Amino acid sequence: MVEIAVMGYGVVGSGVVEVLTNHTENIAKRAKEEIRIKYILDLREFPDSPFAEKFTKSFEDIVNDPEVRVVVEVMGGLHPAFEYTKRCLEAGKSVVTSNKELVAAKGAELLALAQKENVNFLFEASVGGGIPIIRPISQCLAANDVIGIAGILNGTTNFILTKMIRDQMGFEDALALAQKLGYAERNPAADIEGHDACRKICILASLAFGKHVYPEQVHTEGITDITLADVEYADSWGGVIKLIGQVKMQENGQVQIIVCPMFLSRASQLANVDDVFNGILVRGDSTGDVVFYGKGAGKLPSASAVVADVIDCVKHFKARKYLFWEDGTPDYVQDYRLDVVEMYVRAKAEDGNGLKKVEEVFGKVTPLARKHAEPGEFAFVTQAMQEKEIDQKLEQLEVSGIEIVNRIRIGDF
Amino acid sequence: MVEIAVMGYGVVGSGVVEVLTNHTENIAKRAKEEIRIKYILDLREFPDSPFAEKFTKSFEDIVNDPEVRVVVEVMGGLHPAFEYTKRCLEAGKSVVTSNKELVAAKGAELLALAQKENVNFLFEASVGGGIPIIRPISQCLAANDVIGIAGILNGTTNFILTKMIRDQMGFEDALALAQKLGYAERNPAADIEGHDACRKICILASLAFGKHVYPEQVHTEGITDITLADVEYADSWGGVIKLIGQVKMQENGQVQIIVCPMFLSRASQLANVDDVFNGILVRGDSTGDVVFYGKGAGKLPSASAVVADVIDCVKHFKARKYLFWEDGTPDYVQDYRLDVVEMYVRAKAEDGNGLKKVEEVFGKVTPLARKHAEPGEFAFVTQAMQEKEIDQKLEQLEVSGIEIVNRIRIGDF
Repeated sequence: MVEIAVMGYGVVGSGVVEVLTNHTENIAKRAKEEIRIKYILDLREFPDSPFAEKFTKSFEDIVNDPEVRVVVEVMGGLHPAFEYTKRCLEAGKSVVTSNKELVAAKGAELLALAQKENVNFLFEASVGGGIPIIRPISQCLAANDVIGIAGILNGTTNFILTKMIRDQMGFEDALALAQKLGYAERNPAADIEGHDACRKICILASLAFGKHVYPEQVHTEGITDITLADVEYADSWGGVIKLIGQVKMQENGQVQIIVCPMFLSRASQLANVDDVFNGILVRGDSTGDVVFYGKGAGKLPSASAVVADVIDCVKHFKARKYLFWEDGTPDYVQDYRLDVVEMYVRAKAEDGNGLKKVEEVFGKVTPLARKHAEPGEFAFVTQAMQEKEIDQKLEQLEVSGIEIVNRIRIGDF
Repeated sequence: MVEIAVMGYGVVGSGVVEVLTNHTENIAKRAKEEIRIKYILDLREFPDSPFAEKFTKSFEDIVNDPEVRVVVEVMGGLHPAFEYTKRCLEAGKSVVTSNKELVAAKGAELLALAQKENVNFLFEASVGGGIPIIRPISQCLAANDVIGIAGILNGTTNFILTKMIRDQMGFEDALALAQKLGYAERNPAADIEGHDACRKICILASLAFGKHVYPEQVHTEGITDITLADVEYADSWGGVIKLIGQVKMQENGQVQIIVCPMFLSRASQLANVDDVFNGILVRGDSTGDVVFYGKGAGKLPSASAVVADVIDCVKHFKARKYLFWEDGTPDYVQDYRLDVVEMYVRAKAEDGNGLKKVEEVFGKVTPLARKHAEPGEFAFVTQAMQEKEIDQKLEQLEVSGIEIVNRIRIGDF
């Protein structure tokens, strides 16, 4: 029998306890050991819980108990999750977490510590909830060089965009609906401003290319500026708008990484990933494109991913899982303004000569149309060029009296 | 250093050699050992190959060499692949295979032998080519009960159906094109009659539910009877026709399993899996629906899956992978005529009263229409009922003078 502790009895934590309780027999069969929860750490009281006697408010109970061999960290947030995780690893305990903030900020350090202590630090649930993605990338794709990854990594924003696309709901209304349905938090900033997706693409990038990318190195744009006008132009272009986290390895050894809304062609395998679902496309040199799709969050999907990691820890007390990346460096991420992209631009011109002026500056562009365009409004897609060149040209247009209202990158997958 | 042998130098075998050669360093890093090919078994001569000195025509060279610790079986076919695999396992060597026929026919026996000999028998490449699916089902979903699996498991038939749907190409023309492009063999029976998909759903069913399902237990229909008329009716119903392998666990402990063309709603996550791509939907009680998508075959995708298994063998010489299912039983699979389905039916009646007669027998049905229907032709979708009841009712209709031309099940995922 293996004893474990669960730190945090929120949505995922209570799910972990539920999955371990409801699948005890199957899990014991797969882990070849019975897994028993000895402690649940939470500052709140749960007197009526069937697990009441397992609750503790003291982290010291857990870290000092040599019987506890695996600790599940599902508290969320960076502190004290980081300090607790560190101390558990130092105490020779394996740690499983669903905490993307922790892994994105401290992954390299904690993986190095786990390696030193000869224990495991696993985090399948930190990206894609119940979708297996960390393990497939690290194992199944071991014989591949990953070329790039692109993903719809945040269910809340995908729900909002889906409502805007399908039901012509405005951004504010769609956000309010997401909050009402419990998909978005009262303070939705982490989701709608792209920070959550950013943490996840940092984890995937670090894993796929073996070197830590930190969230503050990644240019991140959310979806708060997307309007129904943009949705309609995307439709006329032949696609949809999705919030994408994307990373590509370049020949010079730097990665290109960004989080932003993108136009995706309807033929893209990610274009039909709707509602709260996540989809992650991994491009390998041998496999070609492989896509993983499912619920990216939620109590039971995330909990089942955590429990699968716990089982893996129990099975690998001797043979450590190979999961590792080295520390990052400041010059590892290419300045996003050097990325070459096509750009959708929505603009306004007083006279009817907007597109003519645009083509004087940009050369040939693809004009887009929508019904009920406002007076003077027009939109187009540029040819592929470096972002800084696009910036310069748009500034030129503004000087000549054209108002640039919005701009969205075109995805190429 | 670990020495391995590759049995069979066809498409996948040469791909395995290529991947091992091109990714030597990365693979050594991941396996924590250098992996070296000592033998390649093939009856043909390859005098100009850079690996010429590794070729042997004698299986005995491999099985009797104690330095060979992992054997890759990519010969295909049941014999002598089965005998060779058995002898390698008995000699204490781990075996990795891409051979779905072997695993579908002999999986339980070979897994039991591997367990007894304390070696590994791995077969990630046998289903879905380069798509990680065996490992995610067995590991990541360890904390789930799988409810069911449905998949587009054969790229050749999916290519043919895609051509019929998108380009209104007839079945024969689409097959000829697939053969010309190298997607279909000169004798395409295994693909177009559903046997290949059947082997794959047998492997997935055996793995997900822990008990072997043999191909001869599975009702299997191919796509040779699908016509453009059916494609058009599917379109008017709101979907597409796909060849599906499907399994569901029932409360009575029997599985429901079938391979056949199905109508899939356009909203299904499998409806957009086109061309030679495969897509596999796994429904878990905790994760909900998780979908895996990618190239289901091909030299490098399959080879990279084989090599990932080889790496896993090398990392698990001590800790065996938990991959196991027990032998099957004759009563484990429910008679498919007891399955409850909705059925699309295309029929012909001399008089104009076809649908009226249908509703007298079936009760309410959903009539479908298409342009350019032939005189007397009509089509409808029944309500959900047991297949044997549908059979009886269709016989009744035939007695009353209605000709039943085709019938296709409606997928419910």
